Amino acid sequence: LQLPAFDKETGKLNTIIETSKGVRNKYKFMPDIGLFALDKSLATGMVFPHDFGFIPSTKGEDGDPLDVLVLMEESTFCGCIVRTRLIGVIEAKQKELSGKIVRNDRFIAVFDKQPTYADVEELTDLNARVVDEIEHFFISYTEMEGSKKFMPLKRSGSRAAQRLIKSQMSG
Amino acid sequence: LQLPAFDKETGKLNTIIETSKGVRNKYKFMPDIGLFALDKSLATGMVFPHDFGFIPSTKGEDGDPLDVLVLMEESTFCGCIVRTRLIGVIEAKQKELSGKIVRNDRFIAVFDKQPTYADVEELTDLNARVVDEIEHFFISYTEMEGSKKFMPLKRSGSRAAQRLIKSQMSG
Amino acid sequence: LQLPAFDKETGKLNTIIETSKGVRNKYKFMPDIGLFALDKSLATGMVFPHDFGFIPSTKGEDGDPLDVLVLMEESTFCGCIVRTRLIGVIEAKQKELSGKIVRNDRFIAVFDKQPTYADVEELTDLNARVVDEIEHFFISYTEMEGSKKFMPLKRSGSRAAQRLIKSQMSG
Amino acid sequence: LQLPAFDKETGKLNTIIETSKGVRNKYKFMPDIGLFALDKSLATGMVFPHDFGFIPSTKGEDGDPLDVLVLMEESTFCGCIVRTRLIGVIEAKQKELSGKIVRNDRFIAVFDKQPTYADVEELTDLNARVVDEIEHFFISYTEMEGSKKFMPLKRSGSRAAQRLIKSQMSG
Amino acid sequence: LQLPAFDKETGKLNTIIETSKGVRNKYKFMPDIGLFALDKSLATGMVFPHDFGFIPSTKGEDGDPLDVLVLMEESTFCGCIVRTRLIGVIEAKQKELSGKIVRNDRFIAVFDKQPTYADVEELTDLNARVVDEIEHFFISYTEMEGSKKFMPLKRSGSRAAQRLIKSQMSG
Amino acid sequence: LQLPAFDKETGKLNTIIETSKGVRNKYKFMPDIGLFALDKSLATGMVFPHDFGFIPSTKGEDGDPLDVLVLMEESTFCGCIVRTRLIGVIEAKQKELSGKIVRNDRFIAVFDKQPTYADVEELTDLNARVVDEIEHFFISYTEMEGSKKFMPLKRSGSRAAQRLIKSQMSG
Repeated sequence: LQLPAFDKETGKLNTIIETSKGVRNKYKFMPDIGLFALDKSLATGMVFPHDFGFIPSTKGEDGDPLDVLVLMEESTFCGCIVRTRLIGVIEAKQKELSGKIVRNDRFIAVFDKQPTYADVEELTDLNARVVDEIEHFFISYTEMEGSKKFMPLKRSGSRAAQRLIKSQMSG
Repeated sequence: LQLPAFDKETGKLNTIIETSKGVRNKYKFMPDIGLFALDKSLATGMVFPHDFGFIPSTKGEDGDPLDVLVLMEESTFCGCIVRTRLIGVIEAKQKELSGKIVRNDRFIAVFDKQPTYADVEELTDLNARVVDEIEHFFISYTEMEGSKKFMPLKRSGSRAAQRLIKSQMSG
Repeated sequence: LQLPAFDKETGKLNTIIETSKGVRNKYKFMPDIGLFALDKSLATGMVFPHDFGFIPSTKGEDGDPLDVLVLMEESTFCGCIVRTRLIGVIEAKQKELSGKIVRNDRFIAVFDKQPTYADVEELTDLNARVVDEIEHFFISYTEMEGSKKFMPLKRSGSRAAQRLIKSQMSG
Repeated sequence: LQLPAFDKETGKLNTIIETSKGVRNKYKFMPDIGLFALDKSLATGMVFPHDFGFIPSTKGEDGDPLDVLVLMEESTFCGCIVRTRLIGVIEAKQKELSGKIVRNDRFIAVFDKQPTYADVEELTDLNARVVDEIEHFFISYTEMEGSKKFMPLKRSGSRAAQRLIKSQMSG
Repeated sequence: LQLPAFDKETGKLNTIIETSKGVRNKYKFMPDIGLFALDKSLATGMVFPHDFGFIPSTKGEDGDPLDVLVLMEESTFCGCIVRTRLIGVIEAKQKELSGKIVRNDRFIAVFDKQPTYADVEELTDLNARVVDEIEHFFISYTEMEGSKKFMPLKRSGSRAAQRLIKSQMSG
Repeated sequence: LQLPAFDKETGKLNTIIETSKGVRNKYKFMPDIGLFALDKSLATGMVFPHDFGFIPSTKGEDGDPLDVLVLMEESTFCGCIVRTRLIGVIEAKQKELSGKIVRNDRFIAVFDKQPTYADVEELTDLNARVVDEIEHFFISYTEMEGSKKFMPLKRSGSRAAQRLIKSQMSG
C-alpha cells in the first residue's frame, strides 16, 4: 500500500477504513494478499461507533499500523481511503491476552468536507460525551475478550496526535 | 392493548416488540395514545442485541410491564406482536437514578417457528456465551446512564420464568 | 379498519401492506387488537418479491381478506396504506395443510405515481418474466411448508381482477 | 391523536414522524383511519434529509398540521412520537399546484438526549450549511412537482418558532 | 485495470461502479494505489439515483474516465465490474469551479440479465421521467457545489453513445 | 490470490466470500483483473441464504474453484477472507445449460469465533431443517435458470468434506 500517513500537498491524514460504523464484525487488512479478512466479531449488542481503520505507513508498539476512528455523516466501507483532518488522540494502554501491556492509542479524525464536522479542529470541539462514549466502547468490548483490558490514559489534541504519528512512521 | 400474557389455547408467551435487534434507539409504548415514542438512545457503539419489548397484561416492580428479549432469525419492528416460547429469565436488580433498587428481570423467549431456535426449550440449551453477552449488554449500557446499575442475580429456566410472570399479571 | 376496497372518488384500489419487499418474516393484521403479528418466517433464502398485503373490506374463500402484491420503486412498511392501480391477478388454488383446496388468488397492483410503473395498466404491460418470478416465488415457498401447495390457474387482466374483488366484498 | 403540541410539564415540542431520514417515500397520517398512507415518492436521487413529520394539535394555512424536521443521530420510523427541543424555523411560502401561494414553514427541532445535539439550542448553533442543505432540499424536490415552488423567506430562532406554533394551535 | 471499454466477444460495455444507488458519498478510483477513496459527500437529502461509475480504458475532456450510470434491480458495490448494455447518453457540459466549461457526458447503461431492463435497448424505451429525474439530480447536486454547473445539451441513443465512447478511448 | 485452501498452522479452511447473505446479485471473482464482477441476479424473491464464496487454490469439475457457504452471525462483504471450520458438504450434481451433468458440491463451514456456531463441528450438529432450506434454495434458484438443475446426492460430514477438497486442490 503505497500511501503516506500524511498527504504531502494538503497535510491531510490518510486513513484506510477496515470496519464501518454500525458493524459488529472487525476486519483486518492482509498486506501480503491485498484483501481484508474477518478478524473477529464483537459481542452481540456492540458495533463500531464510527468508521475504524488504520493509518498507512505507520507501525505501533503492537506491530500493527496505528488505529484511527473517522467521524463523518455517512459511513464508508472496508478498504476505503478517507483523507481526514486529524483532531486528537485517546492515548491508551492495552493489556493483551498474553498479559503484556502495550501502548494502543486511538487517533481521532474527521471527514471535514461535510457541515457536521466542518468546524471541528480539535477533540475539544466535540461534545465531551462523544469522546466518553468512544472510550466506553473500547473498554466495554475488551471486557468481553478474556483478560484483555483497554486503559485510557489521557486525551490530547491535534498537535500531540501528529507528533505521536510522526514518531511511529514505518519505513 | 387487549392481549393476555399467555395465549389461552397454545400457552405461548405474547410479546410486543418495542426495539428491534441492531437498533440504538429505545422506544416505549404510550398506552394512552396508542403509539410508540422514542424514549432514549443508547451510547454510540451499543445496539439492542435481540428484539426487545414487553409482556402485555403484566406489571413489574418498577410499574412498567415486564421486559422480554426475543431471539429469532430476522428481526421484526416496533409495535409487532410475536408469539414465543418462554425459555428462561435473567433475574436481576437495577439501581435507578433515584438510588432506589428495584427488581428488573429480563425474560428470554424464542420464536420457535424457525430452525435456529426450533429445539431451544430452556436457557441452558443456548450456548452460555449468548447469555453472557446479553448480561454484559445490560450492564454496559446502564454504565453510561449516570448512577444507574444493572445487577444480574441468577439465570433460571422456563418454569421459574413462568411463575415469575404469573405472579406479576396486571388486572 | 374503515377503508373500502376501492376509493370512491378515484377508483384506486386500497391496499394495506403487511410484509415489505425483501423481508423474510410474514406479518398478519390482528383486527381485534389493531396491531400486526409475526405469523411465520419463510425458509432462509426466500424473501417477499414485492410489498405484500391485503385488500380491505374483502373476504376470500379462506376467510381472510384478499392478497395483493404492490409493485413500486421503494418499499413501504407493515401497516402502510397504499392507493394503487389494479393491473391484474394470478388466479390460483392452494392446497392447505388440511388437504382442502381453496381458491387463493394473488392480485397485482402498481403504485403509479412513479415513472417505473406510470405506464403499466395491465399485467401484460410487465415483462412476462416478472410474473413468472412471482409465480415461482409462491410455488417455491409453499414447497417448504409441508403438504401445502400453490397452483396457478391463469393470469387475468385488470377487468377480471376488478370483478373478482367486487364479488368478494365483505359487509 | 390526543397529544398537545407542547408537553405541559417539560415544555418539549411533541412531534410525530411520518418519513424517516434517508427515505424517498413521503407518508401521511390518515386521522380518520389511524394509519399512515404512502402519499407520494420523491424523484429518484432525493431522500428526506432528516426525520420529517408534523406537530400534533396544530393546523397550518394549508389545512394540514405544521411540518417539522427533527435532527437526531439515528432515525426513527413512521408513526413514532419524538419529544424534541424546538430550535427555530425556516419561514417559507409555497406555491401550490393550484397556483395559490400559502405559508408553509418548516420547523426545526432536535432530539437533545444525544451528544451531537445536546448543546444545540438555536438554529444558529448549527453550521449554516446544514440549514442551506435543508432549504435546498425543499426547493429542489418541489422543482420536480410541476408548478409547485418552495420559497424560503427567512430563518428565525426558537422564540419566533414557538410563537408561530402557538398561533396555529388547533382546537 | 486491464479491462477494455467494450468486451471483445459480446460487445457489452464494461463499467466499474464507484458509488451505489442510494449512497450519498461519492467514491473515486485511485489507479496508482488500486483502492477507492471517499471523494466528497453530496448535500444531505441527495443520494445517487442509480449505480454510478466509469468506463475503463476511456478518458474524457476533464482527464477522468467517462461517467456511466447503470440501471438495475439491486444495486452493487464500490469496485464491482458490471457488464452492461449501453442504451444512450445525456450529452452535457459542466462549468467547473475554475470557471472552465468542459464536456461532461453521462452515459446510460442497463444490466439486461433482469426482467425490468431485459427489453430496454434505447434511452427512449425508458419512461421519459426516469431521464428527467437523472438530469435533475445532476443539476441539483452541482447547485450545492459553489459555482459548479451541470448543463444538459441533449439526449442521444445507443449508437451516438457508442461513437462518443469510441472517440474517447485511452491508450 | 496466494492463499491455500487450508491454513498451515491452524488447519482452518480459507474462504473468499463473493455474495453475502441476503443479497440477490451473484458476484464472481475475475482472477485476471483482481476485481469482482456482477455475474447474474437471482429471480426476485430469492437471496443467498448465507455468505457464499469459493475455496482458494481449488478447482472443481466445472473448472471453477469449489463453492462454500459460511454460516455466521453477521454477514461480511464481497471480497472478504473468512477463516472457517469446515463442517460438511452437500454432495451434488448439476445439469448445466449445455445439458452436461457435472459434480457441483456445496461445502458448508462456520465462523466459529461466535457463540451461535462455537459448538458446531459437524453438519449434523445443525438442525436438519437448516440444511433442508439450503438444499431447497439451490434447487429452487436453478429452476428459474432454463434447463439447469441442481440434484443433491447426499450430505457428508467434515472428514469427507476435507477429503473432497484435498482431492481437488489446484496447482
